[in-house]
Order: sequence, then structure tokens, then C-alpha cells
Amino acid sequence: MPLDNAESSTRKYKVVGTRPNRPDGVDKVTGRARFGADAVAPGQLVGLILRSPHPHAKIKGIDASKALKLAGVKAVVTSADLPDKTDGDAMLYDVLVNVMAREKALYQGHAVAAVAATSASIARQALKLIKVDYEILPHVTDVDEAMKPNAPLLYPKMITDGMDPKPKKPSNVVRRYEFGHGDVEAGFKKAEIIVERSFKTEATHQGYIEPHACLANVGPDGQGELWVCTQGHFMVRDTCARLLGMDFSKLRVTASEIGGGFGGKTTVFIEPIALALSRKANRPVKVVMSREEVFKATGPTSSSSIDVKIGATKDGRIVAGDATLRYQGGAFAGSPVEFGAMTAFAQYDLDNVRAVGFDVVCNRPKQAAYRAPGAPMANFAVESVIEELAHKVGMEPIDFRIKNAAREGTHSSYGPVYGPIGLLPTLQKAREHPHFKAPLGKNQGRGMACGFWFNFGGQSCVSMNIGVDGTVGVTVGSPDIGGSRASMCLMTAEELGIPYDKVRAVVADTGTLGYNDVTDGSRTTFATGMACIMAARDAIKKLCARAAQIWGIPEDAVVWENGHAKPAGSNAGNFPPMSLKEIAAQAPSTGGPIAGHHEFSADGAGVSFATHICDSEVDPETGFTKILRYTVLQDAGKAVHPSYVEGQFQGGAVQGIGWALNEEYIYGKDGRLQNAGFLDYRIPVCSDLPMIDTVILEIPNPGHPYGVRGVGETSIVPPLAAVANSVSAAVGVRMTELPISPPKLLAALEKQSAMKKAAE
Amino acid sequence: MPLDNAESSTRKYKVVGTRPNRPDGVDKVTGRARFGADAVAPGQLVGLILRSPHPHAKIKGIDASKALKLAGVKAVVTSADLPDKTDGDAMLYDVLVNVMAREKALYQGHAVAAVAATSASIARQALKLIKVDYEILPHVTDVDEAMKPNAPLLYPKMITDGMDPKPKKPSNVVRRYEFGHGDVEAGFKKAEIIVERSFKTEATHQGYIEPHACLANVGPDGQGELWVCTQGHFMVRDTCARLLGMDFSKLRVTASEIGGGFGGKTTVFIEPIALALSRKANRPVKVVMSREEVFKATGPTSSSSIDVKIGATKDGRIVAGDATLRYQGGAFAGSPVEFGAMTAFAQYDLDNVRAVGFDVVCNRPKQAAYRAPGAPMANFAVESVIEELAHKVGMEPIDFRIKNAAREGTHSSYGPVYGPIGLLPTLQKAREHPHFKAPLGKNQGRGMACGFWFNFGGQSCVSMNIGVDGTVGVTVGSPDIGGSRASMCLMTAEELGIPYDKVRAVVADTGTLGYNDVTDGSRTTFATGMACIMAARDAIKKLCARAAQIWGIPEDAVVWENGHAKPAGSNAGNFPPMSLKEIAAQAPSTGGPIAGHHEFSADGAGVSFATHICDSEVDPETGFTKILRYTVLQDAGKAVHPSYVEGQFQGGAVQGIGWALNEEYIYGKDGRLQNAGFLDYRIPVCSDLPMIDTVILEIPNPGHPYGVRGVGETSIVPPLAAVANSVSAAVGVRMTELPISPPKLLAALEKQSAMKKAAE
Repeated sequence: MPLDNAESSTRKYKVVGTRPNRPDGVDKVTGRARFGADAVAPGQLVGLILRSPHPHAKIKGIDASKALKLAGVKAVVTSADLPDKTDGDAMLYDVLVNVMAREKALYQGHAVAAVAATSASIARQALKLIKVDYEILPHVTDVDEAMKPNAPLLYPKMITDGMDPKPKKPSNVVRRYEFGHGDVEAGFKKAEIIVERSFKTEATHQGYIEPHACLANVGPDGQGELWVCTQGHFMVRDTCARLLGMDFSKLRVTASEIGGGFGGKTTVFIEPIALALSRKANRPVKVVMSREEVFKATGPTSSSSIDVKIGATKDGRIVAGDATLRYQGGAFAGSPVEFGAMTAFAQYDLDNVRAVGFDVVCNRPKQAAYRAPGAPMANFAVESVIEELAHKVGMEPIDFRIKNAAREGTHSSYGPVYGPIGLLPTLQKAREHPHFKAPLGKNQGRGMACGFWFNFGGQSCVSMNIGVDGTVGVTVGSPDIGGSRASMCLMTAEELGIPYDKVRAVVADTGTLGYNDVTDGSRTTFATGMACIMAARDAIKKLCARAAQIWGIPEDAVVWENGHAKPAGSNAGNFPPMSLKEIAAQAPSTGGPIAGHHEFSADGAGVSFATHICDSEVDPETGFTKILRYTVLQDAGKAVHPSYVEGQFQGGAVQGIGWALNEEYIYGKDGRLQNAGFLDYRIPVCSDLPMIDTVILEIPNPGHPYGVRGVGETSIVPPLAAVANSVSAAVGVRMTELPISPPKLLAALEKQSAMKKAAE
Repeated sequence: MPLDNAESSTRKYKVVGTRPNRPDGVDKVTGRARFGADAVAPGQLVGLILRSPHPHAKIKGIDASKALKLAGVKAVVTSADLPDKTDGDAMLYDVLVNVMAREKALYQGHAVAAVAATSASIARQALKLIKVDYEILPHVTDVDEAMKPNAPLLYPKMITDGMDPKPKKPSNVVRRYEFGHGDVEAGFKKAEIIVERSFKTEATHQGYIEPHACLANVGPDGQGELWVCTQGHFMVRDTCARLLGMDFSKLRVTASEIGGGFGGKTTVFIEPIALALSRKANRPVKVVMSREEVFKATGPTSSSSIDVKIGATKDGRIVAGDATLRYQGGAFAGSPVEFGAMTAFAQYDLDNVRAVGFDVVCNRPKQAAYRAPGAPMANFAVESVIEELAHKVGMEPIDFRIKNAAREGTHSSYGPVYGPIGLLPTLQKAREHPHFKAPLGKNQGRGMACGFWFNFGGQSCVSMNIGVDGTVGVTVGSPDIGGSRASMCLMTAEELGIPYDKVRAVVADTGTLGYNDVTDGSRTTFATGMACIMAARDAIKKLCARAAQIWGIPEDAVVWENGHAKPAGSNAGNFPPMSLKEIAAQAPSTGGPIAGHHEFSADGAGVSFATHICDSEVDPETGFTKILRYTVLQDAGKAVHPSYVEGQFQGGAVQGIGWALNEEYIYGKDGRLQNAGFLDYRIPVCSDLPMIDTVILEIPNPGHPYGVRGVGETSIVPPLAAVANSVSAAVGVRMTELPISPPKLLAALEKQSAMKKAAE
């Protein structure tokens, strides 16, 4: 990878850093954009899914004979139609079992059968005619309950991995993780002040507006097509092809526009079912989830239970940090507790640090990624303790954080040594920010928190085709979930030296480009963007070669500057510079179309840090918390399109605020979800929020030619703690359980008041 | 272009030359394939076109006010909505004027306005409410009439190009072409036998089953999409973008499956109108032609009037050939008379040859390409005279042809000197064929003819992506009009050394691949196929590099053999060969996805020749001609998929038989087409035909790594003459006007019989 690392800090940008209109804006506000449910194929059927009403039950039999006799029913599928082709791949097997229950229904909403019929009403009738013989089993939905010795076991033979010695008794704990370095016990011995607390957070849903939807079409020749809203259609292709026993190249998957994903569309739920129905019915089948299905049967994030202990000396130096994190990943392995444990202390420069994580199963839907998966809950716990510890040490929390902040050269709590990072600049900028010194009123408080996210690289492919009119098509394989088409066009235009509006990015289907990893991990602007730059450089090489051919001089005697080929020095000849457009116009007669390509697996994604400041006001009579002011300061590396970067900062903050104050999965004792809808599961809306203020810092990432870092996820990490810290500052109670919903806060205030009274 | 020219003749093929099932077969027979009219967009409108009832009329005004007041009408467009952006490009201006009449309606069916409405019935009502004020002008529809001095002029200022001296008087003749060499007059002086005849052929339609259809979607941001059945969606993109003033990259065009094209879908008709309607209505607009519109307003081929004179010595050597060809191209320049003049004598080795062509306009729809455009009519004339001349010389026509056949080194009648060509082998093989010696009954006759077609190269782009399961996606930009996906997969599999069924070809939209010339000129298997081979070689280079990386040896120490990377010789190390699948599985960890790409402009398309033998029987009472037996012998270069090659041979023969016997545009004196439907314009159906026998000869084309030549067009060239010659052999009358329909043949037989009687 020939990166000019020096260039990112000195380069003067012409296009990158500007704020053009979003290329998908008009389509999206006029309704022209086509989302998952907008595809239509002649003769398509409606697919509906029968789901378990029980949180845990053995499936003794399924009788679909009556459903199949109903006129208009073209296929019924059960797990028998998805035979196990996972060949020992445990993660894929979990996906298979989650897609369609096999021996047992593992959570309320778990798919047990599906039907394809000529209309939705017939399909609904058919679902009622399918008889499932369940043997109800005891269930557990809370992570702490699930870890108890006598908890009902989801997998009666499961022995926890990663323990030494290996436990002999089966449990619901899938695996233990541990990260850290130094001697934590020795560290705590040096501590003069220690704060130790336990926290709980509830599962939250990504809250994307668009329910999962797809249109599947598989022929008897084993060739198929799938139209789907997803964050990664190549992942969908490979996963579905493997589950259905198809060649990858025979399944062509097109990503629709996506009405939000935030990590929740990084796996498959309905897609293999739709394909299996289509294959069996020999007709196109469309499956669209209801909102209730989205809540009950897609992946929210984990709920968690976390203990944190941090010790410091009186002069404010942290000497030890220890955390134990217990995340439930729903009914399957794979909660993001590993990331939780890795990120918990990542913002600090610690000599003695340990984070232990337990991945736990219980009778809930299989968790899916949610923006910086695993990090917000861990951060909530650690940053709550940090705030409290700072107060006990007698330092301003910001000064305490600055004193202990990770910086270049810090041995991070999860392993690597940091290169140039932007945490300190965000803290310093925060201290200077007007928000930080603004006065507060009664029942108002200010909290802050710092957050970290890794950012991912991964596989990306880009092709770039130059039309004879000199306009450029950029072909990417990363679904545009947050404005990446604009970023890709900006970087392409920058590199080629042409105006932004001469470039159009298209998200290609899986039949027309190489594999692209899922758009997640804040990887797309970094990795796919780097592929754009490299593909542009490949195109530039060819443009220079054409100019050389036209001029009759050697290829290496031509350089590219400001969108023009130029002879390199006076020896090369005296030709006026030739623009991309002029070279493109001659392409048909100089060798044919001009293109640039790049396929690679990116590494060097720079980590990113943010500092958030939150002012809130608590109504002591109702326990209602209003966010008064909120500022996000984050290192973006290089902000390719600052408006989008600000949008990411704001969006993450808002989702974190919702998580902190309102959002939660509420389970009854019957193991059933009680609030599977946006009326009862309340996400913040504009009227709940102030304008989120943003400050972009640009500490170039040496792993990217323009210094770009991921920006999308870090912003959801600090808000949980920032909000909780602000509430604590406002009313003096430390809330250790999320969400800080009015009844919970009111109860805490009443308890505080009762304790105060008792103390009087 | 690093071609190993030697390889094509010695290479042993493993995959190329086999006959796997067609990849689009199941989709097409089950109705799953999506054609032009199968696209649906939410909120789409129905677009209908108002067409001139007059063959020639001045448009004095268009009043659409009443139509616009009709509820449900969302837009009306006229030529005012398509301002001239053609910037002096005369050919593009003709396309513009043909798409929508401007000052004049130039033929019956010429579009004058269009409407987009919420339903077809509203759109139909709206068309009736548009008032067009016509001033009717005199018209002309016959090519000979159009050339007469006092013919009504379509373009009153048009002076014929290519004449010396330049004529002073305007006429309907656009241009004169001349090809040939030697001294024709001197040649005729040496001739001992001369045959001179005049011929006429009528316009025929390509007869594709699928009418033109498209779905256009243009946003107010100037970005648009178009779904369309076409032979060249990149051409559609560039043409429409230019006509509508859009950037090429902002218009994304997807080629649907195509229900036949045969040259007729190599230009635009409804597409700019649909885009203009969509842009104006700000809604998606679907336009689907009726069959009547297809006949009246798309491009049939030219009708023609041809004089041929050929002289030979008594020993059967042709000493001179001369032809004058007059083709009408409808109301616009561009009849294929140039190709007619070039191909007329191309199958002969002549010292003195001349062909003069006149491109003529008249009040008919603008002609479009039809399989080997321009060649069949010229061939009909020349091969009819050749047959007659052979008889007069007293030679078997096949021997006469063999004696005078073009061969390697022949200075062709249109210029170039031939390389290795296959005409003589087809003639020799014909003479040996059982068909040639089969007995004939009463009123039965055998005719033959030889034909030629250039075959084109042109611009093609191919990308090739290797999945981690080792299956391969081939991305092409050539619409598959005749099985090219199978050919592309065969050549890719051959080159990579993997099974055919591990490769899938996808026709990419214009947003995801570089420019590809229209699928015409029999160019696709040659040029796009060569791009597949080159892209595969590019991928192989990368596969070898990955193997080298895995083995830790230099890249140039790895070779590719039989689908495996191998160390090159014992010095390179002792590693077992690694298959494509094994290397692909490791791609994510060895650098990311593996792809191959190739963009180029192909030359070196080899010319091809065919010899056809036709037996027919004439019913002397009705004049009905039945084709009894028909054999096509043609040089395919290398037959990549022999079944498709045979299908092309058969399809061309059948279309030629229809042209010879039945098909014709019938105009009344009012200048109106009288048979705009498949009931009155009768194309041959299976029950009209014998099984067409085929013989594939493989004389490698040195311009292609596998020796491939185009095969699709040559097969329509000889049938007109072969059929006419067989009729002449059956009943002794020489038919010089096509079609040889029963009434015409009956009249000729009656005339013959009357002459015989008069002579008795």
C-alpha cells in the first residue's frame, strides 16, 4: 500500500472538506428512492413468518397440511427446508438456527415456519392454520439471572469457554474474555481513593425507521436474485448462499436504499427464509417485517450488568482500573462483551488495568450490532465512576480526565500502543468551549464523558469509469447508510482534480463488483474511500498514458496536476496541459474506455475519541429529565464532508441520549416483550432535544492518504455517561441503571429525600 | 494487445466448444426473466405518444391545453421540451428529430407529442385532446420515385454529398458512395458473357417479439435512471444524456432482458421522450410501444432498387462486376447502402469491380440496422446474377463460385486484402454435403448463394470478481441478445481453468462498468469475449501473486496451469499446486478480493463467409413457395458454444427466408402503412420451415486468442438469393422483386406461360 503518510497533514484540499448537497437528497425527500419494500417482481408472492409465542419451548412437531390446502398458498417452509450446510461453522450455525428455529424456540418471536401466498390475507390465514406442537420450557431473560447456578439452561451441555480451569458444570455463559496489563491488585494497593460501583443497562433497539424487507427470486436452476435493505449485501449473499447451498456467484444481491441500520442490518433474518420460500414456490417472494417483528425478532443490542472499580492517588493519578462486564447476546453466543471489555478503559493511560467480560445467553432475540457495539454500556459504567472519583479526589472531572488521558505512545487497555490520537485535543477544546462555562440553573447539572472506538478497515473494492463527456462514475459496494456516496465522490473528485458534480457514485450489486465488507465499524469512508483514492490513481496512470500516446512521448514523461496531464519538465516536450475531459473525449480512438480499479483489505484505520458535554434539567416532581444543551467534540481525522460528520456526531449523541433516558426492552415475567412498538418503546424525537452542537477536530490518521478516521460510532459511546453524570450533577443522585426513566429517577429522588430525612 | 496468434489453431479446449445449458434458459421459459415492460417503480405514470397520421405535413401548431386540464394528466411534451443540444452533430440531430417531430412530420407515425398520465385510459383520452394543426404536404415512399427529378422533397435544400461535380439542384439523395478497383469498363470489354438485371426489395422489419419498452425516472436534481430493452444501454445513456443535456454519469441505464433486437434496438425511439416526460412530471414514466407503433415508428430496414451487371469469359472467370444500389433510409440520412455497396461483391476475387450506392430519403420511418445491414439486398441482386451467369457460362453455379471465390490474399471489392478466410471451405463442404446431391421432384428446385459480413470489434469492458468460494462473477456491459452470457462464461472458465458452472455472467448497468459499444455487428462474442479472456489473464496474474505470497516465493516464479498456481520449475520451490478455489478462500487475509479487469477497443474482427443451399417447391396453382430443405455452411472462426452458433445460422436463414418470400412493408398511395401487425406482416413460423441444417467450419481468426469470428449476421446474407435461385430452378422464372409472395409469383408464372403460349 503506497501511502504518502506525510501528505495528509500538509495537503491543501480543493474538494474534500466542502459541503455539497447530498446526492441522494432529492430522491429521499421526494419519495423516489427505492427502499427494501419498494421492489416489485411480476408474479410475486407475499411471505409471512410464524413466530413462537413462547420464550423457550421444544418444538415437537409442525403440521402445515391445512395451510397447504388453502387456495393461494404456494409454499410453507420450516427448518426442514433449510438443512444444515454450515459444515462445522458455529457462528453460521447460530445464524441458521436464529433464522428458523430447529429443535427449540429460543425466544418469543423466534421464527418457526413461513408461508408464501398470493396475498397477505391468505398468508395470514395460512399462518393460523399451521399447528405447532410446543413443549414449554422454563425461561430466563435477565443476564444476572441467567448466570445463576440454577438458571434454566438454553444449551444444557454448554461449558464456558476461556476459563481456567474449564468449568465442569454447564451454564448459560458462553465465554469469558479478559483484557488488560500490569498488576491490578498491586495498583489498588497504591490507591488512596477507590470508587466501586455496579451498573445495569437494558437492551435497546437501533430504532431504524425502515423494517427489514426483501424480495427473493430463485429459479429451479439454482440461480437467484435478492433485493434487500442491508448494510452489507455481499455479506447477505455469502451468508444466504452458504445457508441455501448455492454458489456465491449464482446469487445476485442488490442493496436497496436503507432507512437506517446502525448495525442492526449487518446480519440476515428474513432473507434466507424468503429465498427458501421462493425456491420452493418457484415464484418471487417478498417478505416485509412489521414493526412488532422488528422489535421481537431482530437484534437489539445486549443488556448488561457491569462492576467497575477504579483507584487513584490523591493527586489525581489513576493507579488501577478493574471491570467485570456481563452482556447477554440473546439466545446465541456473540454479545459484544468482548468490545465492551476492550473499550472500557481505552480512553485512559493506565499502568494496571483489567476488564473481564462474560458472554451470556438468555431467552431473548439474538443481539445484533448497534453503533460501537458493546462500548456505550462499558463507557457508561467507567465514565460514571471516573466522574465520581474525580469529585472524590477533588479535581474538576475534565482536569482529572486530562491528567489520565490516553495519548500517543499510551499502551492501550486492550493491547496496542496508540499512534497520534485526538483525545487530549477534544478535552482541551471542551475546556475552552463556551458550553463548558455557561451558567446553570436550579435542578440543572452538567456532565461529561470521553469515549473511544476502534474504527475498522476491511475489504473494499472500487471501480471508476470515465465517460467520454469527462464525467465519472464511481462504483462502490458499500451500501450508503450515512452519506458515503457523497464522501466517495468528494475523494474521487479531489484525487482526479475535477469538480464534485462531475462524479456520481453508484452502489453496485454483488454481480458487478468484488466483495465488500459490511458497512459497519465506521469503516466505509476510511476503507472504501481509500479504495476510491487508489482507483482514481489507477485511472490517472491510464489518463497519463493516453496523453503520452497522443503526444508521442513516454508514459513516465507525463504527470497529473490539477485534473490535467502535463509533460513532466521541459525535456518531455512542450504540450499544453490536457484535461481529463479532453483525454476522455479521445478515449474511443486511443484504446477504448478509461477506468480505474482497486481491490484491497484496508488496515490502518485510526482509532477515534470524543468528549461530550451534557446539560440537563430534572423535574423533581416527575423525574423527567430534559436535555438542555449538548456538545460533541470529536476527532474526525480529516472531515471529508463536514456536514455529514456533524450529522454523525449528532446522530450518535441523540441515540445515546435515548439509551440513557428512555429506551429499554421491557420483559414480563412470562418472558414476553411488553413494548414492541414505537409508542411504548420511545426513541427521542426532535422536540425532545436541543440542537446538538458539534466541534470537529482533525488529527490526521497516518493510515489514510487524506488522514481520514471513522467517525460514525464514537459519538454514541459517551452520551450514556454524560447524561447520567449531568443528572447526578443536577440532583445529586447517581443513577447506575439505565434508562434513567422518570419513574426510576423519581424513585431514586424519593429514596434520596427519605435518606436525607432519616439523616436529619 | 499481447495476442498469441499461434495458439488459436493448436490449443486444445476443455470448456470452449462444449454445449452447456443456457444460463438464462430457465428464467426465460418460466417467465421469471424481466423484459422491458416488466419494470415497476412506485408512483409510475403511463406515457403514450401522439403520432402523425400524415406521411408528410408541416406542423403549424400544437395545442395541448385541453389535455393538460384532464385530471390525471401530469405532463405533455413536444419538441419544445427537447431543445436542440446536438451542437452541430448532424447524426444526433436526426435522432432528435426522429424522436419527436419539429417543424414537419416526416412519416406516418412520426411522434409529435407525448403525454404522461396516471392511467393508460386517461393517457389515451389526453392524446385525443391534443390538437395538432397540420399543413399536409405531398409525399413519396418509393426509393425510385423519390429519386425522380420532380419528387416531393423532404429537405428542400438538400444537395447530394459525394458527387463530382456537386449537383446544383436539391434532391432526396443524401449521398453517393463508390467502392471498387480496377477498370470496370475495360473488364466488360473482355467479357464474353454478360448478365445485367435490375432488382427491387421491400423494407422488412426485424420482427422482434418484444416491442420497445422503458421506464424512465429523472429527478429535479438532474439525476436519472432508465430501464430499457436495448442492444446497447451505454449508447442509450450517451444519446439520451446528450439529447436531454445531462451528464453521462448522472443517467444510469439498465438493460432489461431483450425479446429480440436484430439491429432494431441499436438506437433510441421512446427513451428520450420517457425521460423528458419523467423530468417534466417529476414521476417515473413507463412507455411501452404497441405492435402497430413498432411497425410504424421504429426502424425497419431499407427498401432497395439495385442494378447489377457481371461479365465473364467462357471459361468461367469473372472479368467485371458493376452494381448501382439505391436504398431509402426513411425520412433521414443513413440507409445502409454504404454497407450494401461494400459487401455486394465481397465474396469474389475480382480484378475489375465497382459498386455505387445512393442513400435516399423518403416519407417512411427512419431505418434501423437489421442483421448485416444493407448486405442481404445487395447479395440478392449479385448472387441472382451470378447464378444466371453460371448457367449461361455452362458451369455448375457452385463450380463457378469456387472458381471466382475470394481467398486469402484477395484484394476485396471494398478495399482490404483478406487474411485467412473460410469461403472456399464452405463451398467445398457444400459440394460434399448430402443435401447437394439429394434428388428433387416436380416443381422443386435447388438454389445456392454465398454471403459475406465484416464483423465488428469496438469497445468492451469486462470485470471479473472471484468469490471466496471460488466461483466467479463476470461483469459485462453487452446486452445478451443471442446467448453471449454463455459464451462469456465459457471463455472465462476456459482461461481460468475452472468448470463452466462456476462462472456466472451478469450484464451490468451503465453505473457499474465502463462503456460498451452496442451489441451489434456480430461483435460481442469476439470483442467482449476477448475482454473476458484478457480480464481472466489479469485475474490469473493476481492469483499467481497471491500464491507466491502464500509460498513466500517471487511472483514470477509462479505459473498458472489447469486452474492451479504452480511453482515454475523446481528452483521455485516444492509446493503442491494450489487451485483457484484454494487461493480465493485465502483472499481476505492475503490482500482482499481478487479481480480481473479489461477495457479496450478491439480490432482484428475476422470477416466471415457462408454458403447456403436451399430447396423449394412452388405450387404453380397458387404461387406458394415451400422451403423443403435448407443448409447453412459457415465459417465461425472458433465456435465457442456450437449450439448457439447453429442457432445463429438457423435464425439468420429463417429471417432471410421470410424476407425472400413474405415480408414487406405495404404502403398505400396515401403514404400510409397498410400492414402494421403480425397478421398482415407475416414472418415465418416453425410450421412454415424445415429444420435448418447447419455445418460449422472453424477457420481461426488470427485477431482473437481463440480464433473467434462474429457469426450472427452472415447467415442472413445469402438466403434472399438462395431462395430466389431455388424458385428459379423450380419453375424457370427469375424473380427480381422481393418478396416472392404468392400473388407476385403467380403473376410471373402466368406471364411465363402466356409468353410460352405466344411463342408456340
